[in-house]
Amino acid sequence: MTEILRLHYAPDNASLIVRLALEELGLQYETVLVDRSTRAQNSPAYLAINPAGLIPALETPDGPLFETGAILLWLSDRFGGLASPVGSCDRGAFLKWLFYMSNTVHPNLRMSFYPDKYVGEDTTCQAALRTQVQANLGKSLSLFESLAAENHSWFSTQAPSSLTLYLAAILRWMALYPQGQTDWFDLTDWPNLSAIARNLETRDSVAALCAAEGMEPAPFTRPTAPNPPEGVAL
Amino acid sequence: MTEILRLHYAPDNASLIVRLALEELGLQYETVLVDRSTRAQNSPAYLAINPAGLIPALETPDGPLFETGAILLWLSDRFGGLASPVGSCDRGAFLKWLFYMSNTVHPNLRMSFYPDKYVGEDTTCQAALRTQVQANLGKSLSLFESLAAENHSWFSTQAPSSLTLYLAAILRWMALYPQGQTDWFDLTDWPNLSAIARNLETRDSVAALCAAEGMEPAPFTRPTAPNPPEGVAL
Repeated sequence: MTEILRLHYAPDNASLIVRLALEELGLQYETVLVDRSTRAQNSPAYLAINPAGLIPALETPDGPLFETGAILLWLSDRFGGLASPVGSCDRGAFLKWLFYMSNTVHPNLRMSFYPDKYVGEDTTCQAALRTQVQANLGKSLSLFESLAAENHSWFSTQAPSSLTLYLAAILRWMALYPQGQTDWFDLTDWPNLSAIARNLETRDSVAALCAAEGMEPAPFTRPTAPNPPEGVAL
Repeated sequence: MTEILRLHYAPDNASLIVRLALEELGLQYETVLVDRSTRAQNSPAYLAINPAGLIPALETPDGPLFETGAILLWLSDRFGGLASPVGSCDRGAFLKWLFYMSNTVHPNLRMSFYPDKYVGEDTTCQAALRTQVQANLGKSLSLFESLAAENHSWFSTQAPSSLTLYLAAILRWMALYPQGQTDWFDLTDWPNLSAIARNLETRDSVAALCAAEGMEPAPFTRPTAPNPPEGVAL
């Protein structure tokens, strides 16, 4: 068992959400690059940490964790912050939107990035999948735009939360990926979500992310392709 | 605010997992049918409870909840049982597999049921999607089969948990749906998972489910199409 927190990451991968949470919680952590250029996420060493072969993973005193949503929730409950605590009257509302982000928004976005993992090599089917899931994503953004108008403590411009950190990463990826296939998305269509993203960009956590993973300032509202000091993004 | 727990359900829908959890936790609850034959899940009244238009939803003293995984976790943390509690050394491990079930297994299965929601009306693409996601599901089952061999308290034949209740429903649906397209799945390929499902079938919670939703005994290991006393399954 490791005594410290060790984040297995790749630049501009979902690990960036966990990095932001670690920074916001003021925790000490180490990072280990998962080298996607050699498909290190499928190596025996990495699969021993996350048998699903996905990034991120976080080594902890309680053993290795994976799944972005699970890691966010575990960090919040263990160290306090970024979520409605267990027993609070907002806990259920926070959880339902965290799961919705994790099991609806994130998978639909992943399908648009890697359609071959869902429909195989037929490019007509890949295009059909991309069109449909991008429409699904637009509906999800509408739900989050309405949620933001309710100004909950766990989803607002006032302070970061696991959910707003997750959202900001999703907004970045919608604008950037897949390259040349992002015309469906325009952040200015979502003023409340834009405000959340803009507010996060003033945080030290985001500056730390940009330095570590080679992103320019305003990585959520004016994202550009990263130029990471180590590793590759895709 | 309702003072009691009120489950919005449809027969053989994901709501059955929440019903099992409510039964196992010994909680009083009411049920309200969501009539899929009239697409009641898209009615204004239901969307006010779950704006995503998905079943289940659970009205609680803390407001309406949705997302199966979120409801399971909230019930466990609020009433105790069916999960590794916050602060326990197994909490992170439990969470990572709950999220994996919710955001990988469940969405892949949903894609195989409703391919039109992901690739539109092209039947060639629907078949391609079904083939690929069923292969993905097989890989996920392998991970859970290995996990079961580790005999964790939260994933074993010894006692039910949120995760084993979720698994049992998934195994049922893999065997039944989509009708005529289930040849890829054979429960006997997964002896540890079979044992978990078989053990659950001895529980009073499962008898209550079968009575309420019109299922024959052994709904996980020898499932047949339900004959619900109210509503329709699909």
